[in-house]
Amino acid sequence: MSETDGEKVVSINDLEFENKVSITGAETPLKDLHKPKEKKEKPTKTPKEKKEGVVHGGSGPAGGAKKKEVKKESGLGLAFKKEENFGDWYSDLVVRGEMIEYYDVSGCYILRPWSYAIWEFIKDFFDKEIKKMGIENTYFPLFVSEKALTKEKNHVEGFAPEVAWVTKSGDSQLEEPIAIRPTSETVMYPIFAKWIRGHRDLPLRINQWCNVVRWEFKHPTPFIRSREFLWQEGHTAFATKEEADKEVRAILELYRQVYEELLAVPVIQGVKSEVEKFAGGLYTTTVEAFIPTTGRGVQAATSHCLGQNFAKMFEIMFEDDKGERKMVWQNSWGLTTRSIGVMVMIHGDDKGLVLPPRVAPIQVVVIPVPFKGIDPSDECLKVVHQLQQADFRVKADLRDNYSPGWKYSHWELKGVPLRIEIGPRDIEKKQVRVVRRDLEDKAVGRSQDIPVADLVERIGEILDEMQKGLLERARKERSSCIATAYNWDDFMAALNNKKMVLAPWCDEVAVEENVKARTKCEGDGGGAKTLCMPFEQDTLPVVQDPLPEGIKCFASGKPAKKWALWGRSY
Amino acid sequence: MSETDGEKVVSINDLEFENKVSITGAETPLKDLHKPKEKKEKPTKTPKEKKEGVVHGGSGPAGGAKKKEVKKESGLGLAFKKEENFGDWYSDLVVRGEMIEYYDVSGCYILRPWSYAIWEFIKDFFDKEIKKMGIENTYFPLFVSEKALTKEKNHVEGFAPEVAWVTKSGDSQLEEPIAIRPTSETVMYPIFAKWIRGHRDLPLRINQWCNVVRWEFKHPTPFIRSREFLWQEGHTAFATKEEADKEVRAILELYRQVYEELLAVPVIQGVKSEVEKFAGGLYTTTVEAFIPTTGRGVQAATSHCLGQNFAKMFEIMFEDDKGERKMVWQNSWGLTTRSIGVMVMIHGDDKGLVLPPRVAPIQVVVIPVPFKGIDPSDECLKVVHQLQQADFRVKADLRDNYSPGWKYSHWELKGVPLRIEIGPRDIEKKQVRVVRRDLEDKAVGRSQDIPVADLVERIGEILDEMQKGLLERARKERSSCIATAYNWDDFMAALNNKKMVLAPWCDEVAVEENVKARTKCEGDGGGAKTLCMPFEQDTLPVVQDPLPEGIKCFASGKPAKKWALWGRSY
Repeated sequence: MSETDGEKVVSINDLEFENKVSITGAETPLKDLHKPKEKKEKPTKTPKEKKEGVVHGGSGPAGGAKKKEVKKESGLGLAFKKEENFGDWYSDLVVRGEMIEYYDVSGCYILRPWSYAIWEFIKDFFDKEIKKMGIENTYFPLFVSEKALTKEKNHVEGFAPEVAWVTKSGDSQLEEPIAIRPTSETVMYPIFAKWIRGHRDLPLRINQWCNVVRWEFKHPTPFIRSREFLWQEGHTAFATKEEADKEVRAILELYRQVYEELLAVPVIQGVKSEVEKFAGGLYTTTVEAFIPTTGRGVQAATSHCLGQNFAKMFEIMFEDDKGERKMVWQNSWGLTTRSIGVMVMIHGDDKGLVLPPRVAPIQVVVIPVPFKGIDPSDECLKVVHQLQQADFRVKADLRDNYSPGWKYSHWELKGVPLRIEIGPRDIEKKQVRVVRRDLEDKAVGRSQDIPVADLVERIGEILDEMQKGLLERARKERSSCIATAYNWDDFMAALNNKKMVLAPWCDEVAVEENVKARTKCEGDGGGAKTLCMPFEQDTLPVVQDPLPEGIKCFASGKPAKKWALWGRSY
Repeated sequence: MSETDGEKVVSINDLEFENKVSITGAETPLKDLHKPKEKKEKPTKTPKEKKEGVVHGGSGPAGGAKKKEVKKESGLGLAFKKEENFGDWYSDLVVRGEMIEYYDVSGCYILRPWSYAIWEFIKDFFDKEIKKMGIENTYFPLFVSEKALTKEKNHVEGFAPEVAWVTKSGDSQLEEPIAIRPTSETVMYPIFAKWIRGHRDLPLRINQWCNVVRWEFKHPTPFIRSREFLWQEGHTAFATKEEADKEVRAILELYRQVYEELLAVPVIQGVKSEVEKFAGGLYTTTVEAFIPTTGRGVQAATSHCLGQNFAKMFEIMFEDDKGERKMVWQNSWGLTTRSIGVMVMIHGDDKGLVLPPRVAPIQVVVIPVPFKGIDPSDECLKVVHQLQQADFRVKADLRDNYSPGWKYSHWELKGVPLRIEIGPRDIEKKQVRVVRRDLEDKAVGRSQDIPVADLVERIGEILDEMQKGLLERARKERSSCIATAYNWDDFMAALNNKKMVLAPWCDEVAVEENVKARTKCEGDGGGAKTLCMPFEQDTLPVVQDPLPEGIKCFASGKPAKKWALWGRSY
């Protein structure tokens, strides 16, 4: 119980947490702080009351005297600060925000309903879009024979070290080991060779939503790098390179939409270097996100033109309209659950998750603030009903064993975009208080009283504002993290200042490998690599294409061929 | 080219097929007959023409003289007859109907878009329904540690022989082998123990859509028995047995709806015997389908009450509202892609698949029948547009390298519920001809001319009729396959006559095992077992519960305790 200025406020200080770690083998053993011991808390009554404060639990600009209380509410908050200890902050957040549960097989994580629902929003959006484009869903097997897996040499070299092998069933040894798909090129393309005969069988465009396994030995991180992950993988074949090229970019645009329009994460589109492109492919396009807190880029999704390499290996031929046998042109493209982790890293803060409205499983939580024996639960349900009718995802938290303040913190931790508080005073005034998750406590517009009559319209507007606001803020921050460097010293300075660096480059494999090696020693974290050669974009500082004449590569001093965006990365 | 009665009809005889088997290791090596060699076929013109016949390609009662032609069209049909050679007919059908492609890992199959779309309809329906019930989707890992897998003894005994083990990644041996989930009880329940503390954490109700692996050595059959399959698995925990019991039946009712209302497959609901129940569970309820052609039952989906067995092993406890520590009651329930195979087996015929309208990826195919240089393609597109506006799934087949007759056969093979034929004469009369896939060539109502103005309304009605008609026909046939037997001789006679047998039973494990052993020798196929003890149902012959006094078990002669439904099964 806490009283400040002689005034009772919602209590959260007396919550007790059970510390119990029951899952072994988690990479980041975390105390399980997020499950409060059940405790029947009666709505508290105190001699002195200040209505506004009690009604709204001390949050928002209206309750100036309650700022101290706001701090107390963060007792339910996270154990680490984002700026101070990013890694622990993130691991703590995904667990306590109820997105992830750790698991006893290293590198594997449980996607809880709160994160899986986000994946479902992404799926629904992307699935609808590719179906409009005429792409059909399929399901190919989890297993791939050694023979098929090893057919394309560059490809298998890229994946072989990470392939998991099944060698036993029950107590019996299998005749030959069978691989678990790390990706499905080698699973699907023998069948493409069967399905494609003539030009009328083209284009062949399929997609699947599935799990894949890459037994990586790098440090695993929930969503960002795990040994099993969920994704979609599209695989297509065309008669001409032009059609393939066109699709590569159309899909990349959808990936941009997923990140920017759903997850409110700004991305840079570009093409990968020879070193970084997909093993066995012709060229790889990418959307690259950036985590300002750590100064690291993160490959957000990739759309590959495979050229004719796989077609050659798997003999995927067609007869054109003149009767000539030709090889097809192929693409593959994938988007994974990593996207959820990128969103968490970008928007999360010291209070918890911040979910963009379009992917929030609950967009609005309605919390009754009882006072003087008056329980506004019925009014809360009415508001829920009103908003549900208008297709908002809304929920009332009417639990009687938690105080309003505890609930505020809980739903802030979970990242729900808006909370509506309803107290007796609000009922009298036919209004509710709406509080935005994404704005700072003191920010104008964070908290506003809205007449019930205008609620549906205003909630829609506020959610739209928030969706846009999150992207804009992230874009501004991201843009401030792009430096331009024309020489090595400037490059290193920017890199060590947690920036991405746009630099003129000679586009030689040896030079990229050399930069990677040199930066590994000089900076903290892994070596820097090319994130991409960005396509011309308004959101980036000057990318001039073609380069002004005579410009040299920042690293080799040879004539520069293009702008490349460099950075440390996940 | 073929001419009959001096009359030109659509030609399909001159199609050439390429026989090519490129996938090795398939259990049923089939000639790949389904891909016709591309050939530019001009709409044929002949000196003598009989308009009706040409316009409608000889199908339907209107073209009496064209019956011979109908036979010719079936040249595109299947290589086997359903009644004569069911196994080959089925294997051929799923491949040539473009549902399945064989794969080079034994027991694994590729779900092509045509079947995967059906799975999506099932998913969409079921997912919506369970979400209404408050069940949330999650994703748990593919892998399970040996320790967790072997915790519940009965359970692991049921699954151990079929478990696939990963022992290597890249070239490295894993420290300990890791199992691939055959089902996720042992994956999820250690976490349940962590998530559930107090009665307010209950009920816990989650579901996942995923793949599982059971390395069976029985003869694999596409959809029906495969080493990897797709399913949903629901896992729930409750404070009381009553709540768990109630959910078991609510889910079973949804499974009934999936089968009867979507797939038009009649099922019998009941409870499994001790021998047949889920390994480690308390009791298992089931929906059982039956394939009249083979006289075999097929377990269509199961909803298990696990009781407290797993709760005990995994220590899933909660504190009730009086502060007492209690064990939870659990359920698990699953529906798999087997459902698609059951549907194919029941409705398919010698022309190909027959898809119930609710799950048909294309409900209506519109085929132009050009005549005297008049090409009705534009009218076809108009009809497509009209029907799409009304939310039917419809497609025009305007390919100019296939004749109308070839297209009729092709879409019959694929099972599209309705075909619309449009010729110049139809345009004049402002009508189209609509042909139902499910009715025999001579059946009344198979083919009807419908004014374009009434089309949307009539198509809706006809699809509804077809959906109901398929279920009714299948139910009638199924019901005629249930015999009642009070003694062994009658039991065996019925069984060998491809019936399910309803018989009074003493409900003893040893007796069921004995029946299984005895029937293995006497009949063809595997031994008979209990399919279920049916709940009282109108659709079944007399199931009297309780049994009349004094009735003996048909097999043991001991006093009978209940009616059991016996049969051979998949």
